[in-house]
Amino acid sequence: MSKTLVLGHKNPDTDSITSAIVYAYLKNQVGHEAEAIRLGDVTEETAFALKQFKVEEPRLVTALEQEEQAVILVDHNEFQQSIDGIENAHILEVIDHHRVANFETADPLYYRAEPVGCTATILLKLFKEHGVEVPQDMAGLMLSAIISDSLLFKSPTCTEQDIKAAKELEAIAGIDAQEYGLNMLKAGADVSSKTIEELLTLDAKEFGMGNHKVEIAQVNVVDPQDVLNRQDQLEEAIYNRISEKELDLFFFVVTDILNNDSVALALGKMANKAEDAFNVTFTNHTAVLSGVVSRKKQVVPALTEALSN
Amino acid sequence: MSKTLVLGHKNPDTDSITSAIVYAYLKNQVGHEAEAIRLGDVTEETAFALKQFKVEEPRLVTALEQEEQAVILVDHNEFQQSIDGIENAHILEVIDHHRVANFETADPLYYRAEPVGCTATILLKLFKEHGVEVPQDMAGLMLSAIISDSLLFKSPTCTEQDIKAAKELEAIAGIDAQEYGLNMLKAGADVSSKTIEELLTLDAKEFGMGNHKVEIAQVNVVDPQDVLNRQDQLEEAIYNRISEKELDLFFFVVTDILNNDSVALALGKMANKAEDAFNVTFTNHTAVLSGVVSRKKQVVPALTEALSN
Repeated sequence: MSKTLVLGHKNPDTDSITSAIVYAYLKNQVGHEAEAIRLGDVTEETAFALKQFKVEEPRLVTALEQEEQAVILVDHNEFQQSIDGIENAHILEVIDHHRVANFETADPLYYRAEPVGCTATILLKLFKEHGVEVPQDMAGLMLSAIISDSLLFKSPTCTEQDIKAAKELEAIAGIDAQEYGLNMLKAGADVSSKTIEELLTLDAKEFGMGNHKVEIAQVNVVDPQDVLNRQDQLEEAIYNRISEKELDLFFFVVTDILNNDSVALALGKMANKAEDAFNVTFTNHTAVLSGVVSRKKQVVPALTEALSN
Repeated sequence: MSKTLVLGHKNPDTDSITSAIVYAYLKNQVGHEAEAIRLGDVTEETAFALKQFKVEEPRLVTALEQEEQAVILVDHNEFQQSIDGIENAHILEVIDHHRVANFETADPLYYRAEPVGCTATILLKLFKEHGVEVPQDMAGLMLSAIISDSLLFKSPTCTEQDIKAAKELEAIAGIDAQEYGLNMLKAGADVSSKTIEELLTLDAKEFGMGNHKVEIAQVNVVDPQDVLNRQDQLEEAIYNRISEKELDLFFFVVTDILNNDSVALALGKMANKAEDAFNVTFTNHTAVLSGVVSRKKQVVPALTEALSN
């Protein structure tokens, strides 16, 4: 029997990478042989966190080769966001904080989802439930994930449980969460060296909404104008992506991490529905979404409703 | 805001009824207003347990009338097994011990599934996690559910966790699990007064397997012959059900609770696949499935595999 693979979603963000590492660590501590893998490149934000706590990035694996490979999914459940070949895997567990959709198993499993802001907040509970001590580096990675998912505790996805977990983890990790967190977010928000392709794919997720196929990409920046200066090139690349993947809507969210707003760029045949979704007028395909920073809590529900009617 | 409704599956068994009651009790104890409901008549086995612990049966509700009604699902997740109107409900939580399939939400939720033999085993953990004391009547109901789902700890679905939970609950409930349990199972296994329609529907569940629509009904008996004496009438009723519901297979499992075997009756255009599934020959549409007592652990996986190839 090969090791159980622990994996986050495609286009991995900090929570997906660190939760795979941390949960594989916990499983090994309780006697279950597990290895964290990643489905894509780590972001600069994630690299900053891994370097800070001196943890290696997981091995890159983009497809499962063995039928019935034992896997544990963290930070996602929807098959289209998971590793290629997931349909033939044996899914032992899911640890997640998203909605459930396009997910199915043949057998009973351990499924632990909670409506909190970050997978790491659930992982901290699991350490306690198993009576396993949290080492400093794992605490640092979990704290990094909470800071990343909550934009330093400012996102509406951030719950009291996330804040409480972060406080505990901050003490174990021995760092100042505010200072470290802002530096980590800024490391990820430097878009100057990013190609158009990178901007669109670094944190893109596909969703089924009503009968429509929607891709939502998000990028965090210190100034949205740094991205919007390249709108023409972005649109050309997005139209290519829409035609390749037969998307009904591509929704690109440029989030200002200092002011906690976003600028959205909506393209595709269902783009007009974005106006209903957010009750704003799009001009030249873009609109400011005031106070919107969370794909999960703000963008996905609003678009799902608009596209399901 | 109306109360949150806590509900088990259609054709409710003892775990579905008692878990709804027990979890609604726990939610109320932690300040969340909740009411247990049932989707159908209680079985004689369940009635025996409710009478023993002096608990009223929940209110019968077969369809949700209000959009976005807040609900908590226990002991199931597949929408076709749930209340009518579930697609438009707001599902706050799922507490379950089955595979995940045909389940989807728009929002993140609390989803707690574990690969144990009974929902009640998970509920006992939740009492502890919330620091809520288990009263005698709730302990008795949870114990009844574990006995029912595990056929008095003999089913392959029964895990060490279920046995441990049952021992704790036995002490709180203040009864002898073996003696009480056998009486409870026998109360449910008296088929003499059951109509053909009742035999087929009391514990029937529908499944999607590959591209096929399959219904699996199960009945517990002291002697399978008591049911098979009425095979002609059963087949007529099953063929009607197949044509009404456009089923590809109806699989009727008559389980001998004393010897821990089952006799299966397979009808429908995919009935020949049942031979592959269990590696037995069906004669006159029936076969003895030696050692098979669990729909979830033995019947569903075997049929799913045979029908997916």
